[in-house]
Amino acid sequence: MPRWDQLSASEMELLQTVFWSADSSRHMLADRLDCSKSKVNALAAGLIEQGLLVETGLRPSSGGRRPETLQLAQGLGVVIGVDLGATSLDVAVMTPDLRVLARHSEDADVRVGPGVVLARVRELTRELLVGCGMSPKQVIGIGMGVPGPVDFETAQLVNPPLMPDWDSFSIRDYLAEAFTAPVFVDNDVNLMALGELWRLQRGLQNFMVIKVGTGIGCGIVCHGEIYRGANGSAGDVGHICVDQNGPRCHCGNTGCVEAMAAAPAISRRAMEAAQSGESATLAELLAQNGKLTAEDVGQASRNGDATANAIIQHAGSLIGQMLAAVVNFFNPSHVFIGGGVTQIGPLFLASVRQSVYHRSLALSTRHLEIQYTPLGGRGGLIGAGALAMQESLRLQGAKP
Amino acid sequence: MPRWDQLSASEMELLQTVFWSADSSRHMLADRLDCSKSKVNALAAGLIEQGLLVETGLRPSSGGRRPETLQLAQGLGVVIGVDLGATSLDVAVMTPDLRVLARHSEDADVRVGPGVVLARVRELTRELLVGCGMSPKQVIGIGMGVPGPVDFETAQLVNPPLMPDWDSFSIRDYLAEAFTAPVFVDNDVNLMALGELWRLQRGLQNFMVIKVGTGIGCGIVCHGEIYRGANGSAGDVGHICVDQNGPRCHCGNTGCVEAMAAAPAISRRAMEAAQSGESATLAELLAQNGKLTAEDVGQASRNGDATANAIIQHAGSLIGQMLAAVVNFFNPSHVFIGGGVTQIGPLFLASVRQSVYHRSLALSTRHLEIQYTPLGGRGGLIGAGALAMQESLRLQGAKP
Repeated sequence: MPRWDQLSASEMELLQTVFWSADSSRHMLADRLDCSKSKVNALAAGLIEQGLLVETGLRPSSGGRRPETLQLAQGLGVVIGVDLGATSLDVAVMTPDLRVLARHSEDADVRVGPGVVLARVRELTRELLVGCGMSPKQVIGIGMGVPGPVDFETAQLVNPPLMPDWDSFSIRDYLAEAFTAPVFVDNDVNLMALGELWRLQRGLQNFMVIKVGTGIGCGIVCHGEIYRGANGSAGDVGHICVDQNGPRCHCGNTGCVEAMAAAPAISRRAMEAAQSGESATLAELLAQNGKLTAEDVGQASRNGDATANAIIQHAGSLIGQMLAAVVNFFNPSHVFIGGGVTQIGPLFLASVRQSVYHRSLALSTRHLEIQYTPLGGRGGLIGAGALAMQESLRLQGAKP
Repeated sequence: MPRWDQLSASEMELLQTVFWSADSSRHMLADRLDCSKSKVNALAAGLIEQGLLVETGLRPSSGGRRPETLQLAQGLGVVIGVDLGATSLDVAVMTPDLRVLARHSEDADVRVGPGVVLARVRELTRELLVGCGMSPKQVIGIGMGVPGPVDFETAQLVNPPLMPDWDSFSIRDYLAEAFTAPVFVDNDVNLMALGELWRLQRGLQNFMVIKVGTGIGCGIVCHGEIYRGANGSAGDVGHICVDQNGPRCHCGNTGCVEAMAAAPAISRRAMEAAQSGESATLAELLAQNGKLTAEDVGQASRNGDATANAIIQHAGSLIGQMLAAVVNFFNPSHVFIGGGVTQIGPLFLASVRQSVYHRSLALSTRHLEIQYTPLGGRGGLIGAGALAMQESLRLQGAKP
């Protein structure tokens, strides 16, 4: 068990605040906690003595003695982050301040069902812990992202289109048999947003993370918190219509942005261009690899292939058209774009931007930043770790 | 000045909580304030003695003595609510619990500029106060809704398309010359949302209010608070594209839902139908009135005119198409529709619903309610009153 079982509510609150304010001085922490600096001093001294907080570098002084900043200590234990994609599995052991101690990534197929996939998660977690010289007892919490809609309270998937066998399966109960630490599950793109929120230390209050991969989803940060909506399905932007005469989507409607601009649509268009003789470069890549991925299209584009460029611009423009509607409604300060399709290169981002700025109102876009996710491919894992820390601290802090 | 100048922070906090929890017992208030019932008892006793709180009815007992509920007393003073539309002006004097003591509505034209309109607001406010036997000194706060984007902190309009002369004009400074009470300004549809939030006593956490009139706008409630976005322009849904080949909008883009489905578009289509001989009923109404409003189309529809029905269904369906995108993104529990076009009758609402349920994902709409705003035409005024009370209490509570 983590070594915080005996801590007071005030001590837990200080740990939570430190987690969300890395490298803050005692003075800044007192401000955030709305209490006196002497109280923070006393609490921090106790926690440092117990090995749960450490003093780190010194912040630049604003006159007088330079104040020491505080950080969560490794003595607290470790968190496990699991990032499950439709076709990939990523597991990491992290320190309480989300440094990755050990990480393993491999291909996976969620369609084989929860039994097989979660057995592998359990196995990888054990191996990684052994590799770090840690025991399962030192695990503070486990956070896991999954590519489907999640009921956050019960940690169950709800009608997940990509992984029907997982419907109502309790990931929490399964992992609870192997680990005593609490298990928290959320949608993968919500965790990418949580990861960025943590990286920013809540410095931005209202932003979105769009993931473009096999599907298209969106994590929303509103008033400085992850927003999940009335039924946990907020951010389901993949089925926003961008062309009423567009192709039929697996959801039953026509012209969904996901059906027209996600990775499978990009591959399909590239295959057509290769087979019709429209693009010699794509035809060559197809002959080499037996298939064409979004990354192949990106490579052809970087080699100057005009057809590949057109495919990328079309996808970016459709995604931008969807984003324009969402930006008019939500007026975020930032839109971060992540997921596999970001590997495709800068032309994709440029096309998204052009389309959003063209279609959204000046007032919504005057200060709007659209960029690739700063955490990149680590976003889902860092978010899973942040979920594990945040919710474990909250759970423990709420105990009587 | 209101009689709360000498109150403690705890007393102010109790008043704020009572405002947002009408007819709550002391026990429920203690729960909301997260303090002991004996503390609430003591604070309430003092405030009742000063004439700032009153005991009202009794709630049903759960055993034992029936607990008295509390309400803000009229002794606190009054608030002024102003609801300025593109073509209308509504001013009311309200009690602290937002009962309307006196109200005046008249046609107005915002395009004549802030000087003329605000002089009239000042005049009407004075007259209404005299009519209630109140003096300007008894005004706690003034809340005003305007039909354009507002920078909430400075209370100024920012590039308002319908009222260019008001750009950067300080409504607050103007009214401060006539009244000592603080002045708060917000976008009209944000105030409709605030009005509903207050009516519901924050019973719903995530919902939207859509106003369909001369333009189309949206007020957003997220995590139980009005959400204004990164630059105050959240909810600007009128310029979401619903038809890429649609007509050009005054914003410069094509196919904006506002250009195709707001009141002017409905009138324009009706005029065309009347002039082309498509609808005898509309031609008759045009001959009678010299013009056709959305309400005229509603009347023709209720008389069974097929062309009027088609016009209404088309507008409702386009608005539903825009809402489908927003609902997928935001997953609200409720969408309330208000504004002049709601006068058009039940067919409009039915068409909006049909379109949203057809286009949105099952998970987002499973529990979604779409209905006309419960506060109806009073929504903007009640919201303006709620803004005045909420912000005045907050301002006073924050004083050292």
